[in-house]
Amino acid sequence: MRRRFACRIGARVLRTMSTSYCVSLKDVQEAQKRIHGLVHTTPVMTCSSLDKLAAHKLFFKCELLQKTGSFKIRGALNAVKSLPSDCTAVVTHSSGNHGQALALAAQLMGIPAHVVVPTTAAACKKSAILGYGAMIVDCEPTDESRAEVAAQIIQKTGGVLIHPNQDPAVIAGQGTIGLELLQQVPDLEALVIPVGGGGMLAGIAVAVKAIKPHVKIYAAEPLNADDCYRSKMNGVLTPNIQPPVTIADGVKTSIGPRTWPVIRDLVDDVFVVTEDEIKRATRLVWERMKLLIEPTAGLGLAAILSSSFQEKARQMRNIGVVLCGGNVDLGGIDWVKEPSLYN
Amino acid sequence: MRRRFACRIGARVLRTMSTSYCVSLKDVQEAQKRIHGLVHTTPVMTCSSLDKLAAHKLFFKCELLQKTGSFKIRGALNAVKSLPSDCTAVVTHSSGNHGQALALAAQLMGIPAHVVVPTTAAACKKSAILGYGAMIVDCEPTDESRAEVAAQIIQKTGGVLIHPNQDPAVIAGQGTIGLELLQQVPDLEALVIPVGGGGMLAGIAVAVKAIKPHVKIYAAEPLNADDCYRSKMNGVLTPNIQPPVTIADGVKTSIGPRTWPVIRDLVDDVFVVTEDEIKRATRLVWERMKLLIEPTAGLGLAAILSSSFQEKARQMRNIGVVLCGGNVDLGGIDWVKEPSLYN
Repeated sequence: MRRRFACRIGARVLRTMSTSYCVSLKDVQEAQKRIHGLVHTTPVMTCSSLDKLAAHKLFFKCELLQKTGSFKIRGALNAVKSLPSDCTAVVTHSSGNHGQALALAAQLMGIPAHVVVPTTAAACKKSAILGYGAMIVDCEPTDESRAEVAAQIIQKTGGVLIHPNQDPAVIAGQGTIGLELLQQVPDLEALVIPVGGGGMLAGIAVAVKAIKPHVKIYAAEPLNADDCYRSKMNGVLTPNIQPPVTIADGVKTSIGPRTWPVIRDLVDDVFVVTEDEIKRATRLVWERMKLLIEPTAGLGLAAILSSSFQEKARQMRNIGVVLCGGNVDLGGIDWVKEPSLYN
Repeated sequence: MRRRFACRIGARVLRTMSTSYCVSLKDVQEAQKRIHGLVHTTPVMTCSSLDKLAAHKLFFKCELLQKTGSFKIRGALNAVKSLPSDCTAVVTHSSGNHGQALALAAQLMGIPAHVVVPTTAAACKKSAILGYGAMIVDCEPTDESRAEVAAQIIQKTGGVLIHPNQDPAVIAGQGTIGLELLQQVPDLEALVIPVGGGGMLAGIAVAVKAIKPHVKIYAAEPLNADDCYRSKMNGVLTPNIQPPVTIADGVKTSIGPRTWPVIRDLVDDVFVVTEDEIKRATRLVWERMKLLIEPTAGLGLAAILSSSFQEKARQMRNIGVVLCGGNVDLGGIDWVKEPSLYN
């Protein structure tokens, strides 16, 4: 990041940021050129009834309408297009949205993709990955087995592992959401972004703070997977110890060594929300906006509707919300009928 | 309709249409001016995976993203804005999408609205109607009681009954969907439209056939509520005898005396689909497009995916599909998990 700018951290510290992050505004701008025409410029939607409920003007960035049903194709495609031309294959061990995105990115670029998937993964996820032309490699449902099998595949194929959220090219690709949103909503005052590994959060924060430092960057996180919140509180990277249990399955991962410095310096606040708050917000978007977001994408609205946000960000008017994906497991949506969500 | 044009009916008859329909292209164009700025110009979306499945290029007109969650606000608003200035109130006995639309239309115009609702209606429907500022008047859950209570309200308030699908101003308002779509997709070759009372179908048919007579107008109807299909087969208005049982609750009504002549002359074909076909198509739109349409809005895609359509319309390339609404009863969506829909 060549440009230097001031950034307010918490309530007290004002300091000049270093240029040492893993990605810069220039990286995000180059990513935007690299993936242009291959991904959708997703629409921004508004909803007057949710504005009333939130007491803010909300601008929903509809990444659920992105190719593969989530923002992940931006980073995956930027990563695949940034590989050396003699790259023989790409490999990942994410069976979720990144797995699908990498499969499509590799297909678009004509490179084989190997996705390591635990034998317990849902059939619909495997079918989506296969649908994008990738090869599935089975592993046991443990982190060790995943890593081991991925390492074997890399050795065997000479392929490159594309990390879902710590790869700089992936982070830069996700940051293109921020560039688009600033163009689509020029008078944006704040932006609320779900955080798991922090690739999207860090990418957007780098881009938005470089162009419009006054725009607040807020993270939204499940209380049951609150490593980002605790890291910010402690001032040091503090991953989840136990595998989190949350309906927001896209953000079970902890933030990592590449995304943490950006989050530490450029994210203004982290809001944690309960499972019921996530479900209620998801349901509200379904009901009021007719958009079938996945619960992870409900995090932003859940944070905005929380009393903590309403206190801290009362003065903000125009708030962006990233609806990060729409890959809902329709076989497991009984939660939408829970009476507590109708209050 | 001042302009006269030729239209092919069924496989044999070619004749010059009369100008005697209840609405003309001019009425639809005037409706468009009248409601401009008060309703959304809804987006047209595409989906490559559904294109592959359908073997056509599909253009989905997203009326589920319209105000009140369905196209009905177009007709209701045109009707309310067309009333004499001394009109004291509007009345309807539809508790569904037309009831909500009329409530909002009246609210926008500052006129009281009375919606006659059976005591058995779902709480969410009542709550939506109240949310748009209308007054709810209870009746028994019979057609007689509805009509009787509506008549009492009209007498008491001096209000005007706005019929959900036979009022010419309502039909003209719904026709604005066709005008928009022709502008949004200039090379449209056919258009598939759900049919209940036929207000939307007739309005769109009048507008589209007047501007581009070669664009085919197809109706999509549940097999369990096939009065439009049977009317076309018999050449005479043939309403449903029993109240139909279908998941597509927006099209349980039969076509009527105002919409029938238009449908008879200008609709090229009617495709009937089973309940499972409706559910499967609805689920596909949820899954592939992330749009939470109501089952009635699944009728168009269900028709296109039917073998009958694939045979008859194989040569069509660019096909419009009206996703007419998104007011899904989230309390009753267990059907989406039926294993038969996954084949």
